[in-house]
Amino acid sequence: MKPKDKEKARVAALGLLKKARIVLTRSEKDTLEAADLGLGDIRHVGLEVVVYENNDRYCAKEIVLLPRQVCPEHKHPPINHRNQGKQETFRCRWGVVYLYVAGDRTPLPKARVPARYKRHLTVWHEIVLHPGDQYTIPPNGQHWFQAGDKGAVVSEFSSTSTDGRDVYSDPRIRRVP
Amino acid sequence: MKPKDKEKARVAALGLLKKARIVLTRSEKDTLEAADLGLGDIRHVGLEVVVYENNDRYCAKEIVLLPRQVCPEHKHPPINHRNQGKQETFRCRWGVVYLYVAGDRTPLPKARVPARYKRHLTVWHEIVLHPGDQYTIPPNGQHWFQAGDKGAVVSEFSSTSTDGRDVYSDPRIRRVP
Repeated sequence: MKPKDKEKARVAALGLLKKARIVLTRSEKDTLEAADLGLGDIRHVGLEVVVYENNDRYCAKEIVLLPRQVCPEHKHPPINHRNQGKQETFRCRWGVVYLYVAGDRTPLPKARVPARYKRHLTVWHEIVLHPGDQYTIPPNGQHWFQAGDKGAVVSEFSSTSTDGRDVYSDPRIRRVP
Repeated sequence: MKPKDKEKARVAALGLLKKARIVLTRSEKDTLEAADLGLGDIRHVGLEVVVYENNDRYCAKEIVLLPRQVCPEHKHPPINHRNQGKQETFRCRWGVVYLYVAGDRTPLPKARVPARYKRHLTVWHEIVLHPGDQYTIPPNGQHWFQAGDKGAVVSEFSSTSTDGRDVYSDPRIRRVP
């Protein structure tokens, strides 16, 4: 990803966090991560993240999606016999999120995904999250999501994050911080 | 606690959540808990809570403290050999919180606690949390906190909550939902 694109995404994400009235420290603003997941097209695919806390028991983050930005399909597979994979709860704070999970395919889904990314999406059961709405993804459950036209801010509460172990459906994706 | 006092605390807490721009669902507003911890003096001691998620791995809540309301000293003791006690991270979203933990006693602490409650407070190392600031309490660590003059809204991210197992320093306290 070009440094200019990354910086643009970072600044746009800070703008959405401000609209959502989420207060960050100077250091959190400076280290907010803009991740293009290796595709080099952050305007369409990727996410912006502030990690508040990630320890061996729980994790809390603020996730920002730019307008219509897609966090592509992935799952959190089992780690060992005591950890069946990361479990996570998404709570929409601002904007709208179209979340897709395993289950009956929703007719006329609200997501709009460019064809080059759409072919790697396999789950199409739609959950619409407005501010105050939340949804919990079970361990190892496939999921992907897209923000609505204005973008979105989503709090993620979860078990420990081990991003490097996530399995993405699109083989081109690599999760590098 | 008189039902009138409880309702008053609930309404005041909803007002502070609104100031903090935290969006709740209708059902969350209706079930927001105002806890006087059995002391019958919620204006001085107690807290207001919305539990977003509490499962066998993690928990997330919004805690509201009315102006100068005290969450009294307590700890989360070990549960079994795999769980050394609840660990929790407090993140201030709005207002100011004076948090007290084990460590060097802070001279001239900012908390103001009525004498009848103060005598049960044993830790006096002060951490001041403004919006965006956070602090993690280790398992089994004594702690208590008070909001500043305008009250406070605090996000709590933690391992599983088992409130009934909390151990309060004031023997009169009972944690009943």
